[in-house]
Amino acid sequence: MSFYTLIKNCPKTSARRGCVHTVHGDVQAPFFMPVGTKATVKTLSQEDLRTIGSEIELSNTYHLFLRPGCDIIQKAGGLHKFMSWERPILTDSGGYQVFSLTDWRKLSDAGVEFKSHLDGTKHFLTPEKVMEIESVLGSDMVMPLDECSPYPCEYAEAEQAVRRTTEWLKRTKEHFVKTGMNERGQRLFCIIQGSVYRDLRERSARELLSLDTDGCAIGGVSVGESVKEMFEVLQWVMPLMPLNKPRYFMGIGMPDQMVRAVGLGIDMFDTVIPTRYGRYGTCFTDRGQIVIRNGMYKEDFGPLDPECDCPTCKNYSRAYIRHLFNAGEVLGLRLAAYHNVYYYVNLLRRIREALDQGCYQEFMVNFLTTYNSDLLATL
Amino acid sequence: MSFYTLIKNCPKTSARRGCVHTVHGDVQAPFFMPVGTKATVKTLSQEDLRTIGSEIELSNTYHLFLRPGCDIIQKAGGLHKFMSWERPILTDSGGYQVFSLTDWRKLSDAGVEFKSHLDGTKHFLTPEKVMEIESVLGSDMVMPLDECSPYPCEYAEAEQAVRRTTEWLKRTKEHFVKTGMNERGQRLFCIIQGSVYRDLRERSARELLSLDTDGCAIGGVSVGESVKEMFEVLQWVMPLMPLNKPRYFMGIGMPDQMVRAVGLGIDMFDTVIPTRYGRYGTCFTDRGQIVIRNGMYKEDFGPLDPECDCPTCKNYSRAYIRHLFNAGEVLGLRLAAYHNVYYYVNLLRRIREALDQGCYQEFMVNFLTTYNSDLLATL
Repeated sequence: MSFYTLIKNCPKTSARRGCVHTVHGDVQAPFFMPVGTKATVKTLSQEDLRTIGSEIELSNTYHLFLRPGCDIIQKAGGLHKFMSWERPILTDSGGYQVFSLTDWRKLSDAGVEFKSHLDGTKHFLTPEKVMEIESVLGSDMVMPLDECSPYPCEYAEAEQAVRRTTEWLKRTKEHFVKTGMNERGQRLFCIIQGSVYRDLRERSARELLSLDTDGCAIGGVSVGESVKEMFEVLQWVMPLMPLNKPRYFMGIGMPDQMVRAVGLGIDMFDTVIPTRYGRYGTCFTDRGQIVIRNGMYKEDFGPLDPECDCPTCKNYSRAYIRHLFNAGEVLGLRLAAYHNVYYYVNLLRRIREALDQGCYQEFMVNFLTTYNSDLLATL
Repeated sequence: MSFYTLIKNCPKTSARRGCVHTVHGDVQAPFFMPVGTKATVKTLSQEDLRTIGSEIELSNTYHLFLRPGCDIIQKAGGLHKFMSWERPILTDSGGYQVFSLTDWRKLSDAGVEFKSHLDGTKHFLTPEKVMEIESVLGSDMVMPLDECSPYPCEYAEAEQAVRRTTEWLKRTKEHFVKTGMNERGQRLFCIIQGSVYRDLRERSARELLSLDTDGCAIGGVSVGESVKEMFEVLQWVMPLMPLNKPRYFMGIGMPDQMVRAVGLGIDMFDTVIPTRYGRYGTCFTDRGQIVIRNGMYKEDFGPLDPECDCPTCKNYSRAYIRHLFNAGEVLGLRLAAYHNVYYYVNLLRRIREALDQGCYQEFMVNFLTTYNSDLLATL
């Protein structure tokens, strides 16, 4: 069976309803991947994720490579067994973390040398080494080592990142195939770079897509550029995307950004926003964000989000959750993060339902209107 | 119906199987009360507590009085509604916290003036004021304001605490009855003081028991004295206890201490040990404690406690939980605390089953032997 099945195109937008097939099960697309960087989605249990209905989870190669280390995960029988998550997993390559987390790194065509942000030990990641790690992790969807351009970024620097990302993908794919990772059911993505330069984005897309990976990701976004620039990148590269592969908008985004990006043909999302915002007491609703520490909720005994069916909203009041945050109680973070991840996973479910019903355009306009989103102007 | 029903006496020990009846439901005795000081059992949700099978929860008057404050809980309709816990609640009086948490306090026969440990504001707690607060909280079992002697404690000081605790209980009971708290289903306990002095403990017990409260607690224990002294106190006062009232050993204790105390006729326990130890990665089993950060568990893919049926032990490995602790992930605290609270609640269930089967002595000997407990010597 192919990796991606297209179920239905939206008649009015570029949105599409599909399904991704992995050896750990199918994932209905478009979908959101809760981020479990260190093999745990912060504050939630794997039972919580299953109850929420998430069909997939994302973890990070860089973090797991450094701690607990590949030897332990190998002995556990892979990441699925290590973290007790039997559904599909996508793993980041760690490229982004090497660029954003480490104080010291030395980049060359060979790969990237860096000092661990944990203990300062030196490590050398190459495209092949990243595949070796992800082979041990046993993730269903595998991201290759790329060079993620920062923002802002000079043209010459962005061009070098595009060139290197292509060279690295060639080596990645060779290693991936040679070592039989595809035969063990793992699926490889490419990561389109090029910063905010149209010709570089298009060049990166053409070069990478010619290497025929299983899925296509747009990287180097949500790194500091404006939302306008981010969506420009999307509009440049989407016309180049093949129809038979899932498209992944990396690290995106706010609810309205996901809704808009689906309308442009995106199938996959991940972001730490629901858990990170939850831990600081900011909760998502269709009508925008609720900052639960706010004094206005002191005596508000209604649910966090009256339109939500999650256990946080069914069982606890705003006043109680606010109390938990004020008292520094872990349950506060947990209830808020649970709601937010539920909100994200459920938003993608609602998106799929709208696609099933052939009314995605209406859904998108209604959502962006209710959310009071600036992205309405992009329609 | 009476507050306490005696179901069965143990033929060989002083242990007893009973049941406590409240307007929020029955609690099978002996029982353990998970401690939710600030209206939350740390890291756990109320759904977790229900799934674990806890029939009761304990919260703290001092903490809730200071934050979120009585006005908010009153507007919520009481503590049960505020925290979404429909089963019985026992509330501490806050006396212990005034003595242990505040920098500044002024004690007199009238009551105790203190500065909040949160913001330094001055407050004055009297026996009557504590009842007013607990009336607002609407707890099913109500502890009166007492003077908790520290350890070590001079005889004269301990004697004054005994005298004052009796005087305060008289005022407490008068207020309790006059304001109809009993008619609204609340049940009042006394708290026996007297430090480690036998005559004072016996005097305190006699004086307080003559005031005929619904239940009897032994306070001023686990405050720094040795386990031997703690059990001496228990052996002095237990023969004075009426048969028709539940006996509560406050703030106790380690698993073997609970098992031993049940054998001496105790019906009720509370302690922060399972959650506090869990948060530091120490987990309980019948064979003693597991310190999960220990390097020996690095590649141990077996369950935390192979004899345990809780979700932590059914779903996650020691190596994974150790990783979560090393990575500073909240899920680690949560899984460990869940197991520990489950272990405590389930231990009391096993105790009740042994009592039902008339074999508590054997259970106690077996448990203390497996646990390698020093308390075996006290049998």
